Amino acid sequence: MTLLSALAGDADIQALLSDAAEIAAMLRVERALADASADAGWISPEAAAAIATAIDGFTPDFAALEAGMAQDGVVIPALVKQLRARVPEPHGAALHKGATSQDIIDTALMLQLVPIFDLYESRLGGLLARLDRLAYDWSGRALMAHTRMQVALPTTWDAKLASWSEPLQRHLRALAAMRRSLLVVQLGGPVGDRSSFAGRGDAIAEHLAHRLDLGLAAPWHTTRDPIVALGALLALISGTLGKIGADLALLAQNEVAAIKLEGGGGSSAMAHKANPVNAEVLVALARANAGLSANLQQAMVHEYERSGAAWTLEWLTLPQMLINTGASLRLGLKLLDQLRQP
Amino acid sequence: MTLLSALAGDADIQALLSDAAEIAAMLRVERALADASADAGWISPEAAAAIATAIDGFTPDFAALEAGMAQDGVVIPALVKQLRARVPEPHGAALHKGATSQDIIDTALMLQLVPIFDLYESRLGGLLARLDRLAYDWSGRALMAHTRMQVALPTTWDAKLASWSEPLQRHLRALAAMRRSLLVVQLGGPVGDRSSFAGRGDAIAEHLAHRLDLGLAAPWHTTRDPIVALGALLALISGTLGKIGADLALLAQNEVAAIKLEGGGGSSAMAHKANPVNAEVLVALARANAGLSANLQQAMVHEYERSGAAWTLEWLTLPQMLINTGASLRLGLKLLDQLRQP
Amino acid sequence: MTLLSALAGDADIQALLSDAAEIAAMLRVERALADASADAGWISPEAAAAIATAIDGFTPDFAALEAGMAQDGVVIPALVKQLRARVPEPHGAALHKGATSQDIIDTALMLQLVPIFDLYESRLGGLLARLDRLAYDWSGRALMAHTRMQVALPTTWDAKLASWSEPLQRHLRALAAMRRSLLVVQLGGPVGDRSSFAGRGDAIAEHLAHRLDLGLAAPWHTTRDPIVALGALLALISGTLGKIGADLALLAQNEVAAIKLEGGGGSSAMAHKANPVNAEVLVALARANAGLSANLQQAMVHEYERSGAAWTLEWLTLPQMLINTGASLRLGLKLLDQLRQP
Amino acid sequence: MTLLSALAGDADIQALLSDAAEIAAMLRVERALADASADAGWISPEAAAAIATAIDGFTPDFAALEAGMAQDGVVIPALVKQLRARVPEPHGAALHKGATSQDIIDTALMLQLVPIFDLYESRLGGLLARLDRLAYDWSGRALMAHTRMQVALPTTWDAKLASWSEPLQRHLRALAAMRRSLLVVQLGGPVGDRSSFAGRGDAIAEHLAHRLDLGLAAPWHTTRDPIVALGALLALISGTLGKIGADLALLAQNEVAAIKLEGGGGSSAMAHKANPVNAEVLVALARANAGLSANLQQAMVHEYERSGAAWTLEWLTLPQMLINTGASLRLGLKLLDQLRQP
Repeated sequence: MTLLSALAGDADIQALLSDAAEIAAMLRVERALADASADAGWISPEAAAAIATAIDGFTPDFAALEAGMAQDGVVIPALVKQLRARVPEPHGAALHKGATSQDIIDTALMLQLVPIFDLYESRLGGLLARLDRLAYDWSGRALMAHTRMQVALPTTWDAKLASWSEPLQRHLRALAAMRRSLLVVQLGGPVGDRSSFAGRGDAIAEHLAHRLDLGLAAPWHTTRDPIVALGALLALISGTLGKIGADLALLAQNEVAAIKLEGGGGSSAMAHKANPVNAEVLVALARANAGLSANLQQAMVHEYERSGAAWTLEWLTLPQMLINTGASLRLGLKLLDQLRQP
Repeated sequence: MTLLSALAGDADIQALLSDAAEIAAMLRVERALADASADAGWISPEAAAAIATAIDGFTPDFAALEAGMAQDGVVIPALVKQLRARVPEPHGAALHKGATSQDIIDTALMLQLVPIFDLYESRLGGLLARLDRLAYDWSGRALMAHTRMQVALPTTWDAKLASWSEPLQRHLRALAAMRRSLLVVQLGGPVGDRSSFAGRGDAIAEHLAHRLDLGLAAPWHTTRDPIVALGALLALISGTLGKIGADLALLAQNEVAAIKLEGGGGSSAMAHKANPVNAEVLVALARANAGLSANLQQAMVHEYERSGAAWTLEWLTLPQMLINTGASLRLGLKLLDQLRQP
Repeated sequence: MTLLSALAGDADIQALLSDAAEIAAMLRVERALADASADAGWISPEAAAAIATAIDGFTPDFAALEAGMAQDGVVIPALVKQLRARVPEPHGAALHKGATSQDIIDTALMLQLVPIFDLYESRLGGLLARLDRLAYDWSGRALMAHTRMQVALPTTWDAKLASWSEPLQRHLRALAAMRRSLLVVQLGGPVGDRSSFAGRGDAIAEHLAHRLDLGLAAPWHTTRDPIVALGALLALISGTLGKIGADLALLAQNEVAAIKLEGGGGSSAMAHKANPVNAEVLVALARANAGLSANLQQAMVHEYERSGAAWTLEWLTLPQMLINTGASLRLGLKLLDQLRQP
Repeated sequence: MTLLSALAGDADIQALLSDAAEIAAMLRVERALADASADAGWISPEAAAAIATAIDGFTPDFAALEAGMAQDGVVIPALVKQLRARVPEPHGAALHKGATSQDIIDTALMLQLVPIFDLYESRLGGLLARLDRLAYDWSGRALMAHTRMQVALPTTWDAKLASWSEPLQRHLRALAAMRRSLLVVQLGGPVGDRSSFAGRGDAIAEHLAHRLDLGLAAPWHTTRDPIVALGALLALISGTLGKIGADLALLAQNEVAAIKLEGGGGSSAMAHKANPVNAEVLVALARANAGLSANLQQAMVHEYERSGAAWTLEWLTLPQMLINTGASLRLGLKLLDQLRQP
């Protein structure tokens, strides 16, 4: 946890995206793949049991994983090598049999996204509950509307609060829909056509999805539109919260004083100030995610059956967006808790 | 139509987004608003009839519209002024009564999007039909797969074509869903709460939606997430076509020669060349739309009840994205028609 | 000139970037290339004279140019074909001899940039003169400073105006430096190594630079960093003006009333309003250029000796940035002219 | 150091940007500020000595700094509080006297940039030396040129290597120039006009610059163009290396085989592969930095005398760009060392 993370990060999401969490998810996938492969008759039950035992209690050699990552551009070859050394023969070849790095990495990401979606939904629910409560408490209360940065005409808090809630409700529904469309297994084998599973690929994928409680899908090594659509949704979430932040920073201006933010930030030079720190950071996160979502979209242009360039760009982008979004939701909750009538 | 448009633009979409088309859509909205206002008892039927007559055969003074646009930042004050001069008293005040510029502009955009969506769906259908035909013709045909820019293992055209079709099918479904979620009327009045319609706002909105064959929605002056989600979908469409373009440019390399592109582009200096121009432009459009979608997301941060800055940024961005997407689809069709086995 | 251009465009820059202006610049390059080739003994003086005559009074067939652009991805093959039909034999082969499309297109762009730079410098000078005048007129005048959107401590207009002027002065110096580093001839031949000029390439380039009053440089077909650096400077210029716009929209808030903007924009619904339209558009243009500059940077990744994808992306991006920057400067001047003490 | 960092990060730059490095730089600034304040007669020599002693051997309470960061949006109030508790009275008020958080934070960033610039220059020098060596070793060697992804005409490695070197030489010169234009002290006081230093601000700034071996500049709290210009240069550096990476991934294709990359990356599924991992990551980093540079440019639009939103966006962006650039240079060196004739 860095200093900047304390302000604009999210400890929960960062933990769910840590190396440890990622490797744990990958191990879960390798193990479920072995079980699913046994289910489908692709490897023996004994091999699956031996692999399960090898993965139980396995502690990765992280230095070797880092070296493998730097060498191969993906961590799986080094990870499989470490694991295979623990699987007694003749079962070594059953580990990862027919699969490719991307099958493991993409499916592991889906597993990591599940609790992240849980957290997002919980926080969105919290935001909506607070907004509902405010709508109840402040119902009918007058508010001067401003358009194009000029005083317009009187409106009410009801309208303002509704304009904050509605998009959040849409985002909550979109997240729920994405659980079905996005959170699916990846199983394609080296070139993404399942041919490496000699006819058993579809069955293994079905068992794998069942065992991991993920959806089923055709291989999607190079069809990244659902991932990119997730990025777009993340930018919508942080964008909506950025708009709320912008509104509250404006409404809290000393000259406008339509609201008060309890417990604003202090200054090293001006003791009288109460800065709308959380509101400002929401704007910063909205703009950061907006730009990052373009990078994610750039990563759609995969060359051939797998692009190391596009895929690495995805890795450089999506985790930061997930953290930014978590931070937006976290700070949105904090900010609404600070909100007072003047 | 500029030279660059001949290569990377789209005459159909550009016509649907022209000033003439925009003003026509605005006039349609003003007229439907008058009728809907009469339906709801907000203005008299005589006033609505007078407004309809005034709009029929109205030819705008474009120079005055441009001057109004530059002065007011929106064209509606100047347009309403021109129109009102044609409405006989006592009906002048009934024109645009209770409405704000944004009501007209946003609703007019929705009307313009309808035929654009039609065109997109038709072209997506055309692409899918061509891909289906290729899948039939080339079924079982071998193709060498490449991963990370290196020869991998043999696959088939079936897998390659499926990986191109699937995202396009998703985009087609997403477009259909967006007809319901996005193509809705805007009616909020000056500060977006319908208070200017003195209790008749909901009824007018309902009649307006019915008359324009658009969906109904609460005012959305500052909740631009559906617009931004459209931008994200446009980037997904052009991104998918960019991936197809990248694949075809790679497969058409002289050294790879897995396909041939009939009728490639010529060179001023090398007569032997057949450049994969359409494939390359698909990549360029994918990258252009990716970056533009970030600008659209930046436009979510509206200040207060209407941000001239954010809204203008939307105008500077969305039309170009709509054109780029139309061009991607157009060139995708051209490119698939050029595709031959070597 | 579209309606949106009337608000956020720039008629001068748009004219300098029109198809007509571009073709005129290309013809100037082809003619100067012929003369330079004659200077260097690469073609005969008679051929150069015949080419000059052919170009004099040439009226391009724009429909054929558009068709060529769509076919070849560049306009030069079609343009050269039209021109060559006018050059009497045996001089046809001397036209464009040894050159490639990119030589003509890039050099023509440099010629188009010269008057654009002139215009930028003139407008930057105008802005600085107005700011100097304000600094003189408002010297010592108090202004309440705000930090983090809260009232801070009193400052003076001197400090505020200096913070607006200084970056503009830097941009003016950067533009002047870029005349030398950027405005250079392109001459590389088909693969960018001047080998097509059989040893005379350097001499022809030197004569070409001299005749066109451009700088001399090694071929830069794929080294686009100076172009991308121009984009970055354009974003700095519009970014600085966006900051001034943001300041003025904030200072002009009714509740703050630290300044007045004479002649603000009108509303179709609220007659009392005076919207800070030009200030808002400056913010929109700053954000638009910021995002576009990323697209330009994406265009650095050229494949091999020429990338149609990267180059087309450049064309899709740079002209819009040049227009946005021109519009920023134009509106900055307008806005400063509107600025009054309250 | 995360797994992804092992591939696409830079341990050296990450260390130079760590919390520990940042706090150390801030302490260096506070100490130099005290000394400079004593030099200028703004605080007593005894106070400066007491502050120096307090800072010597100070170990920050990081948990309290994190809490302060989250509360205030900047770490300085918490840091100054911790420090001041160690300064014996009556000297406590002399610490940070007249200064604002931004003075310390921005100046500390400049101190951190010095060794980062050193590292960049050293690596750029290393790249140029390798390219010079290759130019010598491969002089006159033939290479088939490709334009628009098609075989064009023969060229030589001389031309290719020159096209890689020239932009890197420009970047090296631009970095050197930026040492003077960018690496300057920030001293403005709470509202950026040095008025808090009661007439001694200019003298203190001069002493501070001298003591920290930084350049002198007027306060630049809201004029971020030099920072944004740094971001643009970073994107140029990684963009140039991305182009080299794209070239090498293309030239190393099995079907092209114009070069060989010794020690390519392994695959978990295809033992025969040697993936051009470093080349691909260079492309990914180029695209990542391109997008991030847009976010940095968005951060130019500061509201008033300090924008928490814009400044936080800068923090969310610049460090990642510095790391990406370091990684690009690091991997560029690795990649050139892998380069062999086939």
